[in-house]
Parts: sequence; C-alpha cells; structure tokens
Amino acid sequence: MYLSKLFVPLLKEIPSEAKIKSHQLMLRSGMIRQSSTGIYSWLPLGYKIMKKIEQIVREEQNKIGAQELLMPTIQSAEIWKESGRYEDYGEEMLRIKDRQGKEMLYGPTNEELITEIFRASVKSYKSLPQLLYHIQWKFRDELRPRFGVMRCKEFLMKDAYSFDLSDTEATISYNKMFFAYLQTFKRLGLTAIPMAADTGPIGGDLSHEFVILAETGESRIYSDKRIFDLDISKHSSEDNSIKELRKKYDSFYAVTDDKFRKEDFETKVEKKHQLVTKGIEVGHIFYFGDKYSKPLKCKVDLKDGRKVNVKMGSYGIGVSRLVGAIIEAKFTDNVMRWPESVAPFEVAIIPSLQKNDKSIYAKAETIYKFLKKNNIDVLFDDTDEHLSAKFKKFDLIGIPYQIILGFKDIGDKLEFKEVTGKTETMSLEEIKKKLVNKRNLN
Amino acid sequence: MYLSKLFVPLLKEIPSEAKIKSHQLMLRSGMIRQSSTGIYSWLPLGYKIMKKIEQIVREEQNKIGAQELLMPTIQSAEIWKESGRYEDYGEEMLRIKDRQGKEMLYGPTNEELITEIFRASVKSYKSLPQLLYHIQWKFRDELRPRFGVMRCKEFLMKDAYSFDLSDTEATISYNKMFFAYLQTFKRLGLTAIPMAADTGPIGGDLSHEFVILAETGESRIYSDKRIFDLDISKHSSEDNSIKELRKKYDSFYAVTDDKFRKEDFETKVEKKHQLVTKGIEVGHIFYFGDKYSKPLKCKVDLKDGRKVNVKMGSYGIGVSRLVGAIIEAKFTDNVMRWPESVAPFEVAIIPSLQKNDKSIYAKAETIYKFLKKNNIDVLFDDTDEHLSAKFKKFDLIGIPYQIILGFKDIGDKLEFKEVTGKTETMSLEEIKKKLVNKRNLN
Repeated sequence: MYLSKLFVPLLKEIPSEAKIKSHQLMLRSGMIRQSSTGIYSWLPLGYKIMKKIEQIVREEQNKIGAQELLMPTIQSAEIWKESGRYEDYGEEMLRIKDRQGKEMLYGPTNEELITEIFRASVKSYKSLPQLLYHIQWKFRDELRPRFGVMRCKEFLMKDAYSFDLSDTEATISYNKMFFAYLQTFKRLGLTAIPMAADTGPIGGDLSHEFVILAETGESRIYSDKRIFDLDISKHSSEDNSIKELRKKYDSFYAVTDDKFRKEDFETKVEKKHQLVTKGIEVGHIFYFGDKYSKPLKCKVDLKDGRKVNVKMGSYGIGVSRLVGAIIEAKFTDNVMRWPESVAPFEVAIIPSLQKNDKSIYAKAETIYKFLKKNNIDVLFDDTDEHLSAKFKKFDLIGIPYQIILGFKDIGDKLEFKEVTGKTETMSLEEIKKKLVNKRNLN
Repeated sequence: MYLSKLFVPLLKEIPSEAKIKSHQLMLRSGMIRQSSTGIYSWLPLGYKIMKKIEQIVREEQNKIGAQELLMPTIQSAEIWKESGRYEDYGEEMLRIKDRQGKEMLYGPTNEELITEIFRASVKSYKSLPQLLYHIQWKFRDELRPRFGVMRCKEFLMKDAYSFDLSDTEATISYNKMFFAYLQTFKRLGLTAIPMAADTGPIGGDLSHEFVILAETGESRIYSDKRIFDLDISKHSSEDNSIKELRKKYDSFYAVTDDKFRKEDFETKVEKKHQLVTKGIEVGHIFYFGDKYSKPLKCKVDLKDGRKVNVKMGSYGIGVSRLVGAIIEAKFTDNVMRWPESVAPFEVAIIPSLQKNDKSIYAKAETIYKFLKKNNIDVLFDDTDEHLSAKFKKFDLIGIPYQIILGFKDIGDKLEFKEVTGKTETMSLEEIKKKLVNKRNLN
C-alpha cells in the first residue's frame, strides 16, 4: 500500500477530549473517528488491526471446538422478560420501539437469546456438551462514555456460551475457555492474568476476570507477583492438563477490587511478593449453572428419560476494547509498537524523497514491489515530507519494522530498524527472510 | 467436523410460514432461526456460507483499490437532518432515543455518515480519487418482512462510496465497481446482469441494478437474452477495458419494471431475442454527483485554489440476501448444490453405519482423518440414521461432493458422487486430488 493512497487522516495535535494514551493515539493515527458521543467509526488502519485481533480470538475459540454463529443486534424484549432481566438491566440497555410499537432492544449481551436458540434446537443429552460463540456488536448506553474505545457505547465482543449436563462437565467446558483465553492473549502479545472476580449482573458462582497490567486500568488489582511468571506453553487443551494449569493459577493470590480483602492479602501473600497495581479487564468468564435455563425452561432429556435444565456458562472478550488495551500496554515514550500478530503492516519503507532526485523514489519502489511479490504486507511512505516528520508519524502508526532510505551511502545494504529499537544494516534478501521468519512465529 | 457435533438443528417438516424455496431450505437445514419477526440468528451452517460470500465480496472490492473501514450501526439523527433525508425516509428507518433523549437511528444506509467522515478527513484534491467501503449490519423496519433473509429487517450489506473531483473521473470509479460486481457474482456462481435502473431514494442519474434470474424474484425484467452470453473473462480492471465492457452491456436492452417502456422494448429488441422473466436484485450501483456533498458541505481544494464539492457514488451488495438468492437460483427438485466457492464443506462422508459392525465406521473415520490431514474441509456423518435418510438430509445441506460407504463391495475404491449428478468409483487419492483441483479453480 502507498501511504498517499491509504485513507489515514493523521492529526498533528492531541485532541483535547482524549484523556488516555490509547484514545489519543487512535485519534492521532487516524484509526478511529467519533461519529457521535461514545460511538466510533473504524477507519482502515484501526479496522485492519481490530480484524486481526478478531481473527486470533476466533481461531482460539475454534481450536477448543466452539462453533461460530451470529445472533442479531436487535432482540425482542420478550425473552428478557422471561429471564427477569428486562427491568433489572437499567438505563444502559438501549430500548427501542419498532413501527408497530413492539418492545425491542439492542443486545448488551446474549444469555437470553442463545438459551432460546438452544432450547428450540437441542432436545437430547446426546448433543451435549456444546460450545457456541459469536462475535457481534453490542450496545450499552453509557451515561458517561470515555476513554475512546475502552468505554464506549457500541463495541465488538466475542461472547461464548457453554451447555452441559452437570456441574462437573460444565467445569470441563469452563476450563477449556480458561485455556483458550490464555492462548488468545498470549498470541496478542499480552500477559493476561485470570483473577477470581465477582459475578455481577450475569450471576453465578464461578468467575474469572482476565486482566492485563496498565497504569490507566480502571480496576485495582492485588496479587502475588509470581503469577505473572507462570508458563502456559507446557500445557495442552487436554482436560487434565488444563486442570493442572488452573490449579497453578489458583495457588497464587490475584483479585480485583470486588473480591479484595486486606486480611486475606496480608496472610496469603508474603510482603516481598505483593503487587498492588492497576489493570484493564480484557475478558471475563462465568459459570452460572441454570440461572437462565431455569426461567427460560431450557431442558434436555437424560439417558434415563428424566429432563434436566442445562448448565450454562458465558465467556466474553472485548474485541474492540482490546485494540485500546494493547495500546495502553505497549505505547511508551510516544512510540507505539504493535505486536507482530496484529500489526497493521509487517514493515514500512521510509525514504527521504527529494524533488530534484527521483532515484530514491525509484529505489524505494523497487523494494516495495519486491516485498509485495513475496507476499509481505508493506506500507510505502511515498509522501514528500521530511524524514524527521515521517519518523514521528511512524512512531504513532506502530508498524514494528522500518526500511529507511536516507542519505547515508551503505552500498547495496539497507537500514532496517525496529520501531522501538536498534538499526541494522542488511540486504533486502536478509530483510525478507527475517520478516517471513517473524510471521511464521505468529 | 463430525455431524453429531455440528450445531445444525434440521427440521423434518417444511415450516408453514416459509413461502419460498430459500426460506424453506434455510430453516429446514438449520442455517437460520428467526428470533423475532424479520430478524434472524445465523446458525453455524448458514453463518459459514455467509462468511464465505462476504470474503469474496471483500476480495473483489480490495482488488479495485477500495479500502475497508467500518461505520457503526447506530447513527446520530443530526447528519440526516443536514442532508434532508431524516424526514423523507419514512417509517422504515428505526428511530431511537437514547437515555438522554438524543435522536439516534439504526443506519439503513450510510451516505451521510461516510460524507461526514470524508469531509472531516480529506481537504485536498491530492487524496482523490478514493473508494471506501464497509460490510455492516443495516436495519430497515419493514412493515411486512417476508421471504426469510430476502426481505428481512436486519441484514448484512456491503456498501461502498466513491469520491472524485469531476464527473469524468467519477465515471472511472463507477466503472471499476461495475467490473468488481461482475467478478464478484461470477465467483459466487451467479450470472448477474447489470440493468439500467431508477435511482430511487438514493437519488442521482446513473444507476445499474445487478439482477439474477429466479422465478421467485420480486422484479420483472425485460431484456435482450443475448446479454446473458457476454463474456467478462477477456476484460481486465484497466479503465479502457472496463469501458469496452460497459459498452457491450449497454448495447443490449435490459431493464427492470421501473425503466420499462413497451415501445422501447418492441423497437429495440427483435422478437426472437426478447426475454421477459423475473429476477432478484443482488446489487445496485449509483452515481449521484454532489447530492450529498453539497448539503453536507463536503469540499476539497483544487490545484488552482478553488473549492469543489466532491462527486460521489454509492455501491451496494446485499451479502445476507445473497445467501437466499443463491438458493433461489440453484435449489431444484429438492436438491441444493452450493457453488464450490461458498459451500459449507468441500465434501461429505456418508457411511451406512451398523450397530453390530464397527468396520464401516472405522473405515469412514480413516478417510475423514486422511482428508483433514490434507486440509480438506470435510463433514463426516457419524450418526446412525439409515442411508436413505442421510441422502435426503444431504440433499438439503448442499455439500457439492459425497463419499458414500454403502454395502457394495468395490475393493479399495470408493463411491464418489456429485450431489446433483453422477457417481464415480475412485480411489481416495484420486478423490483428494480432484477436490484440491476444484478448490484451486475458485
């Protein structure tokens, strides 16, 4: 892609309404544009990053056998009345009357609707266990939307639902999701810690919040810092292996505000291991048994002919929020570096272009075409800005690698720079190999 | 995938509310489920097909240099008041008041919002031409939703917008889309004919509707039948080549009801070439100049310092509707065959399983594992239904190829059947090669 053609409206100034790093960066680098309070359009750069995150989330869901479907954004109020949540949910639910006066709503979550689908579709124990998920836009009419995509009204979420016959089997489903979440966040370049959490309005008795460290986080977290060193790479998605893994995490104290009790923290965690900091919630998993299947009468036949309410859990990841969360975790000293797995491009070509010397442009374009031919996703800065202005711009865009064509004569070699790091002198062939290797690691 | 694990609630009966083939098939084969009047959930089978259609639409947009972004579903009423359409749009627009009483709406289309984004982002002629698109859920509060996904309330649409400096340049953008549409429908296994059409509520003066033939179509079409034989494969996306192609299409009479005039038809088309039939609209492209840029004051600076309203066009494809349209075009004699490019699986393994003989199951599973290992997307019917019931089921699911393990002893060979066609006897290796070749053609 030629930068002059890319629809990326960069801002020079920090917009005054943006209080946190991610919101500032996303506006300045033309990733998003607010269309009305708390509602954003995703411009090409931001959308490309979000789609990559979405795809990683999807792949890890598929790996544990979850099946993707898609529920609509607009739901009927009826099923919410069945579950009893229609009144409870409060003003955050966007309530709508259609032209015939029917009460509808823009789904803030989907426990009711998935339960309705399941009860109409599945009658027998033979079809269980079942994991279903969708990745869909949700709406919460926040009174004070803020922090850009971190707390906005319309947001993209992956929500999964598990259906089992018993608590024991449900725990296996829960654990699978626990595992998939750790894998997902790892692939996104994040260390996310599962923390015992309150179940809140979803209800239920088993719940983990996945939290990444960030100064701007809205949750205070209290933990044994050794939990950050746990290695998930030795564990597989096999039931017992995940059970072991969960035990390891459970053995270290780590909670958010809701579950924090000072006495517990002091007695369970030695002073030298205590870590009190802030974090951002990027995922939340719940087990709530028959909380919804009971009022919604979602039953299946057991082998012996009895009927039982299915045991359910729900599992969310904030996909659009993750874009902001990754920035909060990675944006330091005014330089962004996207994890390679979600970077908008694999490499940028940054030449110093002179009006009276077309040779550098020609050289840059030759490199561009060579990389394209090798299926490397490259952004070519073909604008006539000064090199220093270009560097500032690319500090924001956050492409992990740069090929710089400046004034230094280094023969056939090229300057190859990591956006946050060192510059090497390499041949184009070496650069290509390095980029392909990097990609294969992801 | 094992069929017993796939979340595909098949119906034995034809649901009485479904009047047309696509609606019946989609309900019976568990592709969709109505969640409230005119609003559907897409279950795994249906969703997989729709995602494949979406991806083909996306790839053909990208090929002509269009850039993907995503506008939100919920829009502010303000910009619609600026353009003057807020009152005009009527009751089909789903109007919403948020908790603070602000007038919002669920976008039925996006001319206003994209114009607002463009005017805020682009100031100079240097950034034009520009093609932007998104694939997003839209809502139209249909008074009488019917025909399943063909005329429902919440639907997925690709809508693209072009921005140019002059009518002449805008025609080039328009032609590119014209070309992309023909390519898109061809890859979907459809012959879609661009027909001169009325511009309707979008406004403007140049417009084509892309229509496929189907008895259940809502539009009557009048055409010179030779237009169906035009070959697009000799044309490239280069400007002049598309111009030639458009000329060819324009040389044959083909219109929908709106533009039909009996005298024209009789004088322009010889009796023997006249075709009057019904069709389904699957895409619509419009050029409307400054219809929106003028009221919304979307201007750019020209080279000589003057300011000019950008010239715009808009280009829609009904992605979710295409699922139904393909069924209407391809479902005959109670047998569905999905075009290979969008089929939910590449091949099905259909064994006759006996309770007291595990050998067929074992053989089927070996074949399944072999195909999976070779990255072929295969559905294994591991249920214990009778072979005849299985065949009926697979006639609905529409996977183009079947490997049948019945009672005939044919040694190391296998029965390989096209769902709508003949059965061959082939080795597994030959089957694999054939499937891989088929895929490479798409």
